[in-house]
Amino acid sequence: MKLAFALLILAVSGSALATQRSGTDAVVAYPEGYRNWTHVKSGVIGPAHKSFAISGGFQHIYANAEGTAGYRSRVFPEGSIVAFDWLEMREEAGAFIEGPRRQVDVMVKDSKRFASTGGWGFQRFVKDTREHAAAPTPEQCFACHNNLKKDGLILSNYRP
Amino acid sequence: MKLAFALLILAVSGSALATQRSGTDAVVAYPEGYRNWTHVKSGVIGPAHKSFAISGGFQHIYANAEGTAGYRSRVFPEGSIVAFDWLEMREEAGAFIEGPRRQVDVMVKDSKRFASTGGWGFQRFVKDTREHAAAPTPEQCFACHNNLKKDGLILSNYRP
Repeated sequence: MKLAFALLILAVSGSALATQRSGTDAVVAYPEGYRNWTHVKSGVIGPAHKSFAISGGFQHIYANAEGTAGYRSRVFPEGSIVAFDWLEMREEAGAFIEGPRRQVDVMVKDSKRFASTGGWGFQRFVKDTREHAAAPTPEQCFACHNNLKKDGLILSNYRP
Repeated sequence: MKLAFALLILAVSGSALATQRSGTDAVVAYPEGYRNWTHVKSGVIGPAHKSFAISGGFQHIYANAEGTAGYRSRVFPEGSIVAFDWLEMREEAGAFIEGPRRQVDVMVKDSKRFASTGGWGFQRFVKDTREHAAAPTPEQCFACHNNLKKDGLILSNYRP
């Protein structure tokens, strides 16, 4: 009976978590219009990189007005949103040209909604869709950022 | 006497042109704040490219609000400004990382002021300065764009 009760508790907890996850409170919205936000910096994973097959191409980072202020002060205000845009690439005579979108990774600063992940919500969107990627999960995103962090969960710096 | 007169005409014309060039009317201003404009697209000149030594690295294109509207309609309104940002790069384990600025090339749409170069003013600025590059001159910029043009003097397309 004790085991059955514990399992019931787990089932209820799991259900409550699932409800929270699918509710509006804990969901990171697609960053509509981010292509008009400030371009923070870029990088390229080239053909000689060990991760080229799965991650090769352009990486562009964009921030909304609050996020851009945060990049300057390194104190990111509530409402900061950062979009990390992954594009495939093709090579033409030694020049690299942008290709189709792989995914868009988003971070949203909301200390209340995302208290359990350092005040930031995380979400990866598949290609050009509004669909959530199966992996990494928001929890996996947070764990890695939290492990790598130097002065916060935003790992990049603004390139003037 | 005829030769002397012709030389005098040339000298006066040259002087008039020089005055026009250095006056505010025919000068393209540095695009202050362009790093907060819309990021149009990017490319990279990689190490295997024939022009790597002088042009290698990242190329980012930015447009102000008028220019961004122009990229969408391909009819660029008066006041459109496009900044073409050249950065050196360095390679780390197959990843390309942004380096120092090479130059900023600017195009400004003003059909009246720049009537002699297709309605667009051209200017290259040296590295992170407001200094005009010795070459290419605005006339050289125009000649090449005018030769390459397909549907206008702006050669790039917006990458969604």
